[in-house]
Amino acid sequence: MNCPFEKIYPSELVRDAVYFMTHAYNEAINAWNKDEVPIGAVIEHKGQIIGSAHNLSRSTNDPTAHAEILAISQAANSLGDWRLNDCALYVTKEPCPMCSGALVIARIGKVFYGLPDEKMGCVGGAVDLGALPRSNHHFESTGGVLEELNHGLLKAFFEEKRRLNAEKKAAELPES
Amino acid sequence: MNCPFEKIYPSELVRDAVYFMTHAYNEAINAWNKDEVPIGAVIEHKGQIIGSAHNLSRSTNDPTAHAEILAISQAANSLGDWRLNDCALYVTKEPCPMCSGALVIARIGKVFYGLPDEKMGCVGGAVDLGALPRSNHHFESTGGVLEELNHGLLKAFFEEKRRLNAEKKAAELPES
Repeated sequence: MNCPFEKIYPSELVRDAVYFMTHAYNEAINAWNKDEVPIGAVIEHKGQIIGSAHNLSRSTNDPTAHAEILAISQAANSLGDWRLNDCALYVTKEPCPMCSGALVIARIGKVFYGLPDEKMGCVGGAVDLGALPRSNHHFESTGGVLEELNHGLLKAFFEEKRRLNAEKKAAELPES
Repeated sequence: MNCPFEKIYPSELVRDAVYFMTHAYNEAINAWNKDEVPIGAVIEHKGQIIGSAHNLSRSTNDPTAHAEILAISQAANSLGDWRLNDCALYVTKEPCPMCSGALVIARIGKVFYGLPDEKMGCVGGAVDLGALPRSNHHFESTGGVLEELNHGLLKAFFEEKRRLNAEKKAAELPES
């Protein structure tokens, strides 16, 4: 299942939220090309990307292999420090309960996400783990960064999945 | 820093909550012996342990390397399925925000923990991620399993840490 969307290469001269989110979007395309739910994440530290990953939970058969978890591991390894206070995470969709919690544990500085998720998102959607009253670490999150682009990619992926499943089922039906 | 507590070997004939929690406790001792915060976890499936791990976040420099995350990865790998509906997790302390969220994502069947954590525990302490209203997966948690034993281990670890730090500071003071 090849991703029909093309990667976007932003100017290296403007390191704003759109720049970093575009790289997260490109990671999501990498996920699609591996038949994974297309979610991507990057971690920024002093204007540089020090963690960049996409969802790999299907291909690794590991529910913990979400883009954010993998990017956090990379960033901590790159810094030689598990505390990411001076880092920002950019992810194409609002983080799930596990990844939102991982951002607390890793003491992330700031979070930017694309598509909000009121059902399972845990940096403000279903609950805000970045604001637990008695936690020793809090962080702020900003949603809606390249939301339309990120939403379009996820929507197209699930539409294509449904289409393929319907085709498969139709092929399995006995001839009348 | 060697752990002064000894491992406990329960009867293999009685596979109850105490049996599995004892194995989680033994994993916590493994963590202490690596100078890690002593937290251990095991995952049970049909009476067998299919995941067994201890906290490794300091030695791997990876904030995501908590006992539960590592045990979930092992269990999913062992089953060849990322869905752990028929499994129970046993962990010595109430899971943190990340690990509680991972249990939702991995669709764990049931959770047993030792020491409750009202501040950062997220299966009932600070919040209950196993009961998010719009989540597609819910699970129940039971706290207080071998609570005194598990609490004793954690308490002794932090006391020893404080003692060593005080010794170190005293050695650094200029002679009067």
